[in-house]
Amino acid sequence: MKWYSQKGEQDDIVLSTRIRLARNITEYPFPIRLDASGREQVSNLVRGALSGGECGVFGYIDMKTLSQTQAISLAEKHIISPEFTSRIPGSALMLTKDESVSIMLCEEDHIRLQVIMPGLALEQAYDTASKIDDLLDSKLNYAFNEQMGYLTQCPTNLGNAMRASVMLHLPALTRCGQISKLASTVSKLGLTIRGAYGEGSKPLGDIYQLSNQITLGISEDAAISNLKSIVMQLISQERTAAAELVNSVAQEDRIYRALGILQNARLLSSDEFMELISLIRLGISTGILDMERDKINELTFNMQPATISAAHGEAIDSAQRDKIRAQTVREAFSAL
Amino acid sequence: MKWYSQKGEQDDIVLSTRIRLARNITEYPFPIRLDASGREQVSNLVRGALSGGECGVFGYIDMKTLSQTQAISLAEKHIISPEFTSRIPGSALMLTKDESVSIMLCEEDHIRLQVIMPGLALEQAYDTASKIDDLLDSKLNYAFNEQMGYLTQCPTNLGNAMRASVMLHLPALTRCGQISKLASTVSKLGLTIRGAYGEGSKPLGDIYQLSNQITLGISEDAAISNLKSIVMQLISQERTAAAELVNSVAQEDRIYRALGILQNARLLSSDEFMELISLIRLGISTGILDMERDKINELTFNMQPATISAAHGEAIDSAQRDKIRAQTVREAFSAL
Repeated sequence: MKWYSQKGEQDDIVLSTRIRLARNITEYPFPIRLDASGREQVSNLVRGALSGGECGVFGYIDMKTLSQTQAISLAEKHIISPEFTSRIPGSALMLTKDESVSIMLCEEDHIRLQVIMPGLALEQAYDTASKIDDLLDSKLNYAFNEQMGYLTQCPTNLGNAMRASVMLHLPALTRCGQISKLASTVSKLGLTIRGAYGEGSKPLGDIYQLSNQITLGISEDAAISNLKSIVMQLISQERTAAAELVNSVAQEDRIYRALGILQNARLLSSDEFMELISLIRLGISTGILDMERDKINELTFNMQPATISAAHGEAIDSAQRDKIRAQTVREAFSAL
Repeated sequence: MKWYSQKGEQDDIVLSTRIRLARNITEYPFPIRLDASGREQVSNLVRGALSGGECGVFGYIDMKTLSQTQAISLAEKHIISPEFTSRIPGSALMLTKDESVSIMLCEEDHIRLQVIMPGLALEQAYDTASKIDDLLDSKLNYAFNEQMGYLTQCPTNLGNAMRASVMLHLPALTRCGQISKLASTVSKLGLTIRGAYGEGSKPLGDIYQLSNQITLGISEDAAISNLKSIVMQLISQERTAAAELVNSVAQEDRIYRALGILQNARLLSSDEFMELISLIRLGISTGILDMERDKINELTFNMQPATISAAHGEAIDSAQRDKIRAQTVREAFSAL
């Protein structure tokens, strides 16, 4: 079962938690300075280090064997970064079957190790990442410096080189116009909040990504505990705002209309689907609708454009995709 | 059973047919020149002429006994004219139980006799009106002049003093942008097309009223046959346009979305309801939806603002009305 089909802590608001560690190997220059064969050497080195299976079984995907659609589908699921869809020769992806642990090889850094879990699970995700990191550390020479920590290509990652982030569904705070105020508050606390697909992406379906901004001069534990305490405050604020909204007929009306459209539409764009599904989640959180949240989360993952295309043949256009999305959603909702 | 709960000919497109005859009595000046007691005399005279029951049983409503909401509800159902909701003293309404025959007494003319029937039924409605007219003619002295025909207050009604009209649902022609072209064509043929509530009213829910414009120098039969031939052409044009629309997924999508909203909304304004129900009718006509059209027509009549207020207590405001409308519509659709 994929990680996104599972339940998690606080998963009415926290859709997922991610820990990402950036590492480089002393003997090689950063990937940008490597040619295809150099990148392939690095990728194979890491693959070899994990081949013992002490930290689970990984599939190994040579990125250049993937189609663009397949690569974009991986990015939609946050398994790889949008940049990694360029599939440069020698780059590779290691991935567990449940898709919860992924390692991008020769993206910006030699190693980008990511653990993703449903709900709020910062410590658990870090534990898992840390074990794999320890194993790799024991077999490879990490580029590390007492003063600057892990050496990374981009200076903003120096230090612990960890990015911890949570995907938050904040429909009530969005509706109350609280998000921009929130963004400036969390920025003072060394965090950043943005759309689900990172910098510059617009928040689709009221989903936001909250992550640590500062990596230098702070331990992993301190960064995680800082992030967690802010997440807990946001959860409480969102619940309060949602409880106030739920008393209005107008809000109930919006939720039921969203349901009516999802159950009946014959064409559904990705953007509209995300907006409507946000209302369904809000309906579940506020007790207006009685549905299984994890089924909704799974559906949300599978209804992304490239993920639909990857499942239904690469050649389909956006109109066909909207038709398939509408039909799949109708079937899913009639089974809920 | 009310006339609007019944089926009719061509009722996928023709919602109703109305024949209205204007008559005045020689011995009295036009209502505008009468005082309350004069109007009451006229009203009672006509009531007396119909008391034998040869032409059916009529209720008699002294207009000043009605509340404004009750009067507006009658206007919404086209039983009385919008002007008649002013309920001036001495004016009265005679009405059969099925609401198909109504006589406004001392509106603009002494007698405004109206027969309304479901579907396309010009000859039948005229026959019914004519029988009542003959009875009244035998008991009253109609103001009539060989050259000018029936004398009416407004010169545009002189001649046969008959207004024949049909209420048409033309969603496909509306969508194709054909209506304004149509309006100029029918005007050359002595007809006029406008919104459901007459001159200046905007066409709500793609419903239009087509009626004869010219009454002088044309017999009733000729006027009706002229109107009918144009209606038959419009029906055929609308069917062709609808058949072209139905092949598009976008159209199917709009129809099913309308259904989803009607089945789920918690607040429904009158305007939105009319727009959505228009799509439902189009869905039935084109075979996309399988529902009883007469139930939809009945619901349309009952969901008008004053009609809801008249049924649920006068004091309710528009927000409460929208809530009642949404609930009634949900219940109706779950029973369809």
